[in-house]
Amino acid sequence: MCQLLGMNCNTPTDIVFSFEGFSRRGGLTGEHVDGWGIAFFEDDGCRIFLDYLPSVSSPIADLVRQYPIKSRNVIAHIRKATQGRVSLANTHPFRRELWGRDWIFAHNGNLADLPTMNGNRFTPVGTTDSEWAFCWLMNELSVRFAQMPAVDVLYANLQALLPELTRRGNFNFLLGSGNLLFAHCATDLHYIVRQAPFTSAHLADADLSVDFAQLTTHEDRVAVIATHPLTDNEAWTRMQPGEFALLEGGRRLF
Amino acid sequence: MCQLLGMNCNTPTDIVFSFEGFSRRGGLTGEHVDGWGIAFFEDDGCRIFLDYLPSVSSPIADLVRQYPIKSRNVIAHIRKATQGRVSLANTHPFRRELWGRDWIFAHNGNLADLPTMNGNRFTPVGTTDSEWAFCWLMNELSVRFAQMPAVDVLYANLQALLPELTRRGNFNFLLGSGNLLFAHCATDLHYIVRQAPFTSAHLADADLSVDFAQLTTHEDRVAVIATHPLTDNEAWTRMQPGEFALLEGGRRLF
Repeated sequence: MCQLLGMNCNTPTDIVFSFEGFSRRGGLTGEHVDGWGIAFFEDDGCRIFLDYLPSVSSPIADLVRQYPIKSRNVIAHIRKATQGRVSLANTHPFRRELWGRDWIFAHNGNLADLPTMNGNRFTPVGTTDSEWAFCWLMNELSVRFAQMPAVDVLYANLQALLPELTRRGNFNFLLGSGNLLFAHCATDLHYIVRQAPFTSAHLADADLSVDFAQLTTHEDRVAVIATHPLTDNEAWTRMQPGEFALLEGGRRLF
Repeated sequence: MCQLLGMNCNTPTDIVFSFEGFSRRGGLTGEHVDGWGIAFFEDDGCRIFLDYLPSVSSPIADLVRQYPIKSRNVIAHIRKATQGRVSLANTHPFRRELWGRDWIFAHNGNLADLPTMNGNRFTPVGTTDSEWAFCWLMNELSVRFAQMPAVDVLYANLQALLPELTRRGNFNFLLGSGNLLFAHCATDLHYIVRQAPFTSAHLADADLSVDFAQLTTHEDRVAVIATHPLTDNEAWTRMQPGEFALLEGGRRLF
């Protein structure tokens, strides 16, 4: 299995602290050593860093740990391979363009079988169940809408599509585009919304603390979502199996 | 205007030496300071590093200069903005998936106007003429072929499509997928094929030499293609205006 990390904020924020703890689970405090990746939405653009090396020993992960890229929406993943060999093509998060927007997807779980694709507009490059499921979702959306629908319509359509995937196995995922972050919990997904008054947080995977009161303004709001809580002194909310959330600006819309 | 760099080899090779010289043109020996990017094909996967900062001062470029990623096919770009503001969404190279393969595109030039898109399967995320031209090519190919055609058929179809773009302005570009590297020269594009007996090369943009005889085997073949020659002691071949090349395994197929 894998682990997921997402961040969604109302102001560009760096993820260095959370990634420091999360990336240790890729070989140090966890066994997810089969590659990792992280995608940052920045304005209308998006960039992804990927490596098939474990996140604890990857030079590219070193860069991400040290270089505070500011973003309103981030999706990261550390991989413990189930389907598909260890390779760049099988490394999450995956990316596709639809309606002139970048879409980013990462999955934690395993699907026993896969639904038939509705067309071949989006086709997997690698051999994971995860990228197949992502392409299946993108094909279904592209058939339904010629352009980006209203956010509530998009949410409702995604929710209606999910049973076709969730009935086939364990399907925790993060899906992002622009400032929107969709999160589905099948088994394990926790989140926290940090806002004023900010306090100090201590990582669960390293003896490292940060006092967010020193780094934020009164208006900032930062939601962090992860397979398992990243800090050991804050109250994370455990999502329920089947729960499907949409965050924007660090706030849960649905 | 911008500058292009491509590398195409028969064995995975790092591009550290060439990128060292090339990236200096992004603010030190050249004025291309409006962002840069590099894409590496590795097996069936692909990863891109992008920054809107100049390549001479980008921490991500530092990583690429220091971390010898081995690839058979690389496309890099340094940008001097003509159309589209300085932003990640406007930073080359661009990427799309077609036929279950990643396609990477970078452009040097400027198109005065843009052809009408044949459908909306591929839609620009940013506002450059370059990404528009790339999406136009991808749409045209996707309409013609439901899956990847034979390489000679693909080459012929791309060549037949080019006049629709080249008549609108200056259109030097590199287009890659897997081990294939297409290169079109409108005004400036030079290449060199390094093979046994290997010799020493000296950068044009830095007082730095490398003796390829020490780093290679007798079978290696490495083609490097760039807007302007990267070394000052080797014989680069200047491509002719209108020339359209396809390289694979460091060899020119067409």
